[in-house]
Amino acid sequence: MPVYHPEALEALRAAMKESGIDYYLMTSSDCHASEYVSNYFKVTEFVSGCTSDNVILIVGEKDAFLWTDGRYFISAAGELAGTGITLMKDGEKGVPGVGEWLKERLSRSEALTLGFDGRQVSAKLGASYRKLATDCGANVNGEAALIDSIWTDRPALPSHPVKVLPEEICGKTFPEKLSDLRECLRREGADFLVLSKLDDIMWLTNIRGGDVDYNPVALSYALVTPAEFFLFIQETELTEEFRAYAEKYEIRLLPYENVFAFLKDYPFAEGAGKSSPAILCDGSASTDAMMQLLASKGNLIDMPNPTEIAKACKNEVEMENIRKYYLLDSAALCKFIFYVKKQMELADSDKEPDFPSASPLTEMAAARKLDALRAEIPGFLDLSFPTIPAVGGNAAMAHYAPEGEGDVIEPHGFLLVDSGGQYLGATTDVTRTIVIGDLTDQMRRDFTLVSAAHFRLMNAVFRKGTTGYQLDMLAREPLFAHGLDYGHGTGHGIGFILNVHEGPQRIGSVRPGTTPVPMAEGMLTSDEPGIYRENEYGIRTESITLTVPYKETEFGTFLRFECLTWVPVDREAIDLSYLSTEDRRMLNDYHAGVYEKVAPLLNEEERKWLYEVTREI
Amino acid sequence: MPVYHPEALEALRAAMKESGIDYYLMTSSDCHASEYVSNYFKVTEFVSGCTSDNVILIVGEKDAFLWTDGRYFISAAGELAGTGITLMKDGEKGVPGVGEWLKERLSRSEALTLGFDGRQVSAKLGASYRKLATDCGANVNGEAALIDSIWTDRPALPSHPVKVLPEEICGKTFPEKLSDLRECLRREGADFLVLSKLDDIMWLTNIRGGDVDYNPVALSYALVTPAEFFLFIQETELTEEFRAYAEKYEIRLLPYENVFAFLKDYPFAEGAGKSSPAILCDGSASTDAMMQLLASKGNLIDMPNPTEIAKACKNEVEMENIRKYYLLDSAALCKFIFYVKKQMELADSDKEPDFPSASPLTEMAAARKLDALRAEIPGFLDLSFPTIPAVGGNAAMAHYAPEGEGDVIEPHGFLLVDSGGQYLGATTDVTRTIVIGDLTDQMRRDFTLVSAAHFRLMNAVFRKGTTGYQLDMLAREPLFAHGLDYGHGTGHGIGFILNVHEGPQRIGSVRPGTTPVPMAEGMLTSDEPGIYRENEYGIRTESITLTVPYKETEFGTFLRFECLTWVPVDREAIDLSYLSTEDRRMLNDYHAGVYEKVAPLLNEEERKWLYEVTREI
Repeated sequence: MPVYHPEALEALRAAMKESGIDYYLMTSSDCHASEYVSNYFKVTEFVSGCTSDNVILIVGEKDAFLWTDGRYFISAAGELAGTGITLMKDGEKGVPGVGEWLKERLSRSEALTLGFDGRQVSAKLGASYRKLATDCGANVNGEAALIDSIWTDRPALPSHPVKVLPEEICGKTFPEKLSDLRECLRREGADFLVLSKLDDIMWLTNIRGGDVDYNPVALSYALVTPAEFFLFIQETELTEEFRAYAEKYEIRLLPYENVFAFLKDYPFAEGAGKSSPAILCDGSASTDAMMQLLASKGNLIDMPNPTEIAKACKNEVEMENIRKYYLLDSAALCKFIFYVKKQMELADSDKEPDFPSASPLTEMAAARKLDALRAEIPGFLDLSFPTIPAVGGNAAMAHYAPEGEGDVIEPHGFLLVDSGGQYLGATTDVTRTIVIGDLTDQMRRDFTLVSAAHFRLMNAVFRKGTTGYQLDMLAREPLFAHGLDYGHGTGHGIGFILNVHEGPQRIGSVRPGTTPVPMAEGMLTSDEPGIYRENEYGIRTESITLTVPYKETEFGTFLRFECLTWVPVDREAIDLSYLSTEDRRMLNDYHAGVYEKVAPLLNEEERKWLYEVTREI
Repeated sequence: MPVYHPEALEALRAAMKESGIDYYLMTSSDCHASEYVSNYFKVTEFVSGCTSDNVILIVGEKDAFLWTDGRYFISAAGELAGTGITLMKDGEKGVPGVGEWLKERLSRSEALTLGFDGRQVSAKLGASYRKLATDCGANVNGEAALIDSIWTDRPALPSHPVKVLPEEICGKTFPEKLSDLRECLRREGADFLVLSKLDDIMWLTNIRGGDVDYNPVALSYALVTPAEFFLFIQETELTEEFRAYAEKYEIRLLPYENVFAFLKDYPFAEGAGKSSPAILCDGSASTDAMMQLLASKGNLIDMPNPTEIAKACKNEVEMENIRKYYLLDSAALCKFIFYVKKQMELADSDKEPDFPSASPLTEMAAARKLDALRAEIPGFLDLSFPTIPAVGGNAAMAHYAPEGEGDVIEPHGFLLVDSGGQYLGATTDVTRTIVIGDLTDQMRRDFTLVSAAHFRLMNAVFRKGTTGYQLDMLAREPLFAHGLDYGHGTGHGIGFILNVHEGPQRIGSVRPGTTPVPMAEGMLTSDEPGIYRENEYGIRTESITLTVPYKETEFGTFLRFECLTWVPVDREAIDLSYLSTEDRRMLNDYHAGVYEKVAPLLNEEERKWLYEVTREI
């Protein structure tokens, strides 16, 4: 069933008229700030046909406007053609932003009404549109659930049975985590906590679900009270195992759909034993509807979920599991690179008419090969995101995904592969750029500088309190020196059998309105500088690090990164003239580690190859 | 006349009673956020006797409390002994901060009144105390000028005649700067600008004063309207030259003392031609009284003064003057180092009874020698701060100033000298750590790592938009790697014949509540990493940089630092085993530059010495 319904736009306008709404605003996010959104939540696509990830759609009586960012200008223009909806290229000169546009429109006459469904608008956007409308003398209806009535064949909410993680791999039981969490709440002066963030709920309860692609999370909400723990989850997801677990740990199960009704009636004051209970809820991970409701029930403490930092700092048991699976995952990628190199030799030898032709290796065939190698690892659950195999200029595109089989991998230049797995003990993520043919001097220089950037950050020592925003400079500096840079962050956090992207740490620029978070012991973070040349090639080297103690001195506590990824950085593309003595030492040390750790996991042919590609340079 | 009056505390309590004030709050700042405060403004010292720089004093009916920071705990304890005033060691565990304390006190009974003189309380503190008091149900009287009536022999306001800078060294005339400024105001939607920051006013008008030690500024306020420019300045400061200048450029001169009365009556609405005029005033550089007054006159735009960034980015003419004077200033310091080295040789040879004893060199004698060398430079006006000469453990103390003659400089370890001058074309600042005797291995290692830190930052290339908070990491990383660090920022901005410390850029951590400012072309910034070992020694190497273009590429605009300070980094303390090949190259390149530039400015003996100390290592 297609999500897009060409007749939805007019149906929506009729519903707007009935509800007295002049402008109706929709976003492409779900209720939980998830990275992947299921069809159920795709209201902007339902009305406009636009499949972009980052969309705000506003429908007026006679016109409609859709904002998206530069990644989607081309695709969105095609999808919107003929719909009567105007594409607003967000960030382009002369194109008003949503706020500016709304301000102009809502000021046109008296008492216009802006409507939206606050359950699917983030708290931050909701608050800003509410203020803006009020400033313009307009009314706001944030409970306008217009799509519910007109989307008659709406897909069901995703629903997959939840699994309980074996406690021996979690390091802490749910009651232990809950007790730590209640201690945090006490410190913050909060009586209650409402969680909307799915990975936080999964981490806290030691369960995993399957409701978001590649993210093993279940659609849910949680309420922590001084004495009880409520989990809102779809009935269809409850297994016998989970019911028993919930009973053992006194997890009060309630239907996912009832969360708003339940919270509306919940006696917060009584539960806290005071007239003005304090409710902690992270506005950056909640919806406008949730924040509006909770604000009416007590003093709202809007701050990051205490679960966020607890989840980010892996415990000893998690770290041991992570180290183990990262090594197995690295070995799979080594096997894959060996395979690709061999295929390329065959393809190259094609030119000799004596040899039989090898079937051409496409991007997707390469991805399938790698996915199969991962699937052989005991404990493999899923990929942590769709494998990205990109040759030539494809690798210079952000968020590249091959169409169909993708391009044939010809023996020229680079193949960039970004991939990762979900295992019963780790979520992995790794990128290597593989030499598959002849390189130009510029390709070698770019590759070598990315490698230097990667190892300089990897080998950093930093004082406790240092933020990723500061560390970012260590990776960029070798590129800056040559007038080069990359348009993305250098590192993101990674979950434990959870989302491949998680906060709060980030190695990179500070997002407006946020405070950079210091790197702390146990954080699992990527190190992934790159260089991208449009239509030519893309280079990225990504390894994953664990923040660990280095030493204590009279000057403070110092931390360092432990590398978890053990996959060769392609020596064929290294131009030694761009490496300092120290850069070279770091590369050689790393390669010695790769051979030592991975060789025992390979067959003889692979081991011989690994020996060659990790030799001192 | 001493500032402290032991009877002032009781006189103040009587005045409080008369005005119905339960707690009276005073700070040690002047009305302009100046670094040095004249006696006129020392109200906290007048009441308490405490001479610390960073004080908040609160007097109650029966008790009184004084907060200061760790630098002053020892001196403040001595000064407060017997006064009945309790010292609050700010930041120490278990010691409530001012806010916490006020909250507790103001909640004790109904409708207490907190009083202060808003003309001498910063806007930020004023706003926070006002909110706090209101939250506690207390009253606020921010116009309680109680000190005025009880300090009968109060020192006069400082007053020195202002000088008009020759226009040929300013690069831009006052009307040009004013026109640029009005353009900025238009962009920000501001009709008016009120300036309280003295160096901003001096920069804008191209005049200089002498009312704050070492900072060539005149006590003043300025009001920029759409059509006029008002300068509030003491009558006693007006020279014939300046009056003529003011007339030529239509600077409306008004008495400094009348600024509040004038602004209170000023017809802002009429001047802007609209009922709700927008007034820009930088709350971080203004007083509570000023912000309260302006808020009653229109829409207040509280943002950094547009003059701040314009002042920070030096123009071509300023840069040429700066380069010239930095070289002359560097030569003076080279001469000084040569002198010290020779004195140390003499002191050392003392041990041989055949030679006559050299008179011992004290810290202050060394400072006088250096100050005299600077004073010989044509165009010398003043020091930019008191020269800091520090031997042994003295150099490990922040803000060290010798008492009397200070310590005798014995031929052991290091002499750290931090100094600078005001010239008719530049304000300078430079620190070198000079080997004056035997060193330990640890001293050599520390010195070498500080040198590496200094040159790595100095040689950085960075993309436009990079902030000092990011760049800071390049200087810290070589220290972090050995578990070392320093407790101060790596770099501050420097004025043009103005304050030796100015904003908005800063190479270092971000002060809470502020946004880091990107480094921009023309910024003059220090590069001064260090290592300090309590009671043993202190090392700092400080050079000044100018941010200049590096190159434009498809990846962006890149900037670099041009070094302006040309003084040897003492080779005697370099341990090559702690320098990478690249670190060594940077040191040698720098020394080659020092010899090439400074040698022509020295006599033959000095030149020979310079040749030796700048040879390739």
